[in-house]
Amino acid sequence: MKIKYELLHKDGNARLGKLHTNHGVVDTPMFMPVGTLANVKTLVPEELKAMNTGIILGNTYHLWLRPGEDIVHKAGGLHKFMNYDGPILTDSGGFQVFSLAKGKNAISEEGVKFKSHIDGTNLMLTPEKSIYIQNMLDSDIAMSFDECPPASASYEYMKKSIERTLRWAKRGKDAFNNPNQSLFGIVQGGYFEDLRKWSAEETVKLDFDGYSIGGVANDHESKEDMYKAIDYSIPYMPEDKPRYLMGVGEPVDIVEGIDRGIDMFDCVLPTRIARHGNAFTRTGKLHMKNAKFREDFTPIEESCDCYTCTHFTKAYIRHLLVANESLAGRLLSIHNIRFLIKLTEDAREAIKNDKYKEFKEKFLKEYKD
Amino acid sequence: MKIKYELLHKDGNARLGKLHTNHGVVDTPMFMPVGTLANVKTLVPEELKAMNTGIILGNTYHLWLRPGEDIVHKAGGLHKFMNYDGPILTDSGGFQVFSLAKGKNAISEEGVKFKSHIDGTNLMLTPEKSIYIQNMLDSDIAMSFDECPPASASYEYMKKSIERTLRWAKRGKDAFNNPNQSLFGIVQGGYFEDLRKWSAEETVKLDFDGYSIGGVANDHESKEDMYKAIDYSIPYMPEDKPRYLMGVGEPVDIVEGIDRGIDMFDCVLPTRIARHGNAFTRTGKLHMKNAKFREDFTPIEESCDCYTCTHFTKAYIRHLLVANESLAGRLLSIHNIRFLIKLTEDAREAIKNDKYKEFKEKFLKEYKD
Repeated sequence: MKIKYELLHKDGNARLGKLHTNHGVVDTPMFMPVGTLANVKTLVPEELKAMNTGIILGNTYHLWLRPGEDIVHKAGGLHKFMNYDGPILTDSGGFQVFSLAKGKNAISEEGVKFKSHIDGTNLMLTPEKSIYIQNMLDSDIAMSFDECPPASASYEYMKKSIERTLRWAKRGKDAFNNPNQSLFGIVQGGYFEDLRKWSAEETVKLDFDGYSIGGVANDHESKEDMYKAIDYSIPYMPEDKPRYLMGVGEPVDIVEGIDRGIDMFDCVLPTRIARHGNAFTRTGKLHMKNAKFREDFTPIEESCDCYTCTHFTKAYIRHLLVANESLAGRLLSIHNIRFLIKLTEDAREAIKNDKYKEFKEKFLKEYKD
Repeated sequence: MKIKYELLHKDGNARLGKLHTNHGVVDTPMFMPVGTLANVKTLVPEELKAMNTGIILGNTYHLWLRPGEDIVHKAGGLHKFMNYDGPILTDSGGFQVFSLAKGKNAISEEGVKFKSHIDGTNLMLTPEKSIYIQNMLDSDIAMSFDECPPASASYEYMKKSIERTLRWAKRGKDAFNNPNQSLFGIVQGGYFEDLRKWSAEETVKLDFDGYSIGGVANDHESKEDMYKAIDYSIPYMPEDKPRYLMGVGEPVDIVEGIDRGIDMFDCVLPTRIARHGNAFTRTGKLHMKNAKFREDFTPIEESCDCYTCTHFTKAYIRHLLVANESLAGRLLSIHNIRFLIKLTEDAREAIKNDKYKEFKEKFLKEYKD
């Protein structure tokens, strides 16, 4: 069965919805934790479920190299391999291979040549190969293989890149062969208003199960640029399909993205900053190694309902960090992921009550980056 | 309240018992996981409870340096600091500081001078200081500060060392000031039969709440030597007090130790080998990174009831190890600790049924090191 998006309510552009998948019904807008190598770093599935996680991500490039899509397929798919029974989305691998592709002939009509980050082996990823791997991984949602041009690309380059991404999207769709998996198309176009519109319209014509906005997560010059790219794309994305803003997960960006009509977000941020000792709070990030927490026997955030905040103090977490105990990263990952998921829960409640603008204003006022 | 040992049944020298503590009643013989820095590496208290853990260990030397006994005391003691409500035993710090003490004046009647392993600061640990720190940590069981001579020490040196350890034990007992904590004495004497006897008799005269056998964990020339040192000591240790073999946790040694009348074991082995990718099984250790597990979709051990074995396959754990995902260490720690705890559960059942010798023979026949 393909996924099905159900729009329940709108408050301005903000959308409250449900996504029906083969692995359960999940609420949108949602934040999706990243489980690159078939695990959300340091955590087990029960912990993700306890945080009310909806969808998690797997990274196609990483899983292709290790353990290999054949192993995951033989295990019965990614859900069985990692023992996660909720819905899983896989990316296309495009973002990773573009960052590894060097030399002027690396990117061709056929696909992308690059060297493995593990052993330098020469490899090639094509639209067909990306789809094949994702079909084998058997995630609930697969992503089209798109070109990821830098935000600094010229108008002419961006236009040609969109044309290629459309051809690749068509090739991937033609190669697609998994009736239990859905496929998303990706809107590109940098910060050019007409290109975003054109990319969205042409991608929608190919008829995907959902649509995402790419090319904004990493090298936008300002957050305003990112928000503009969303505003340029959203009006041309159908109301009856989910909308996914790829690679974005700063709390402020989630709040702004929801306001613009985004349903799905993903980012490595909550687990990455956890490993560096940082915790999200409603008033901004805390560096938990700070000496001021030495004798602070209160939780990271009094109002937080996560396992970490209901069981441990700042002083204990600081101690674990200072002593280089990896449990610190685990406890902070739990807190940070739960923080973003709770943020989307609160956002959904606000949309339901037609109070999203007030919710957003209050959040942005309190949160200092 | 002090701990109370209840002897329920004997099968040969093997003892089935219960230890009544301020944090619950636990069964002996038992294996105690090591939580050096106020956490059993990568794990949370709920996971330890789910494995049927009795007592866990904290390391006085490490907790003195980080976060400091004052912080733990202000938190309300080690139980509250790390949120573990089961019984905790702390070592004296002696073992660590003796390994850090250099130069011929490092060890004196007063105590041991050494350099901090963190920043090289000159520090001194004395019997009184060790007891003070442990009183502040507020563990259920504290250990006397003893000299840890090398196994290669001469008879004369060993004799003098025992005399000093007895004086230190007395000083520690006099300084002891925590009515809710129990204190164990330590029997030394290397592999000299008469010195073990003498050390045991003199230590027992000082009247502790339990007794341990020291000096066998790390530099015995053969396992037979270790077992001899136990045999030399046990007859002089009172039946109505618990007997603790310090730092020993190889499965074979646990089985042999129980046979000789030991009630308590501790070792970093299960978590340390986990971090190196190894798993205990009834037939010996498995190196989980081995290529033969690439497509092995069975658990580490079919008969194991641990969280890891009931949720994940060898292929998945191998993948996590190959990809350097720290979750592997966590899942293997759970399996390895549960393996040793289950081993003691099975041993208790065998003692109860007067079948310990058969149990031991069967185990030693199957387990290949």
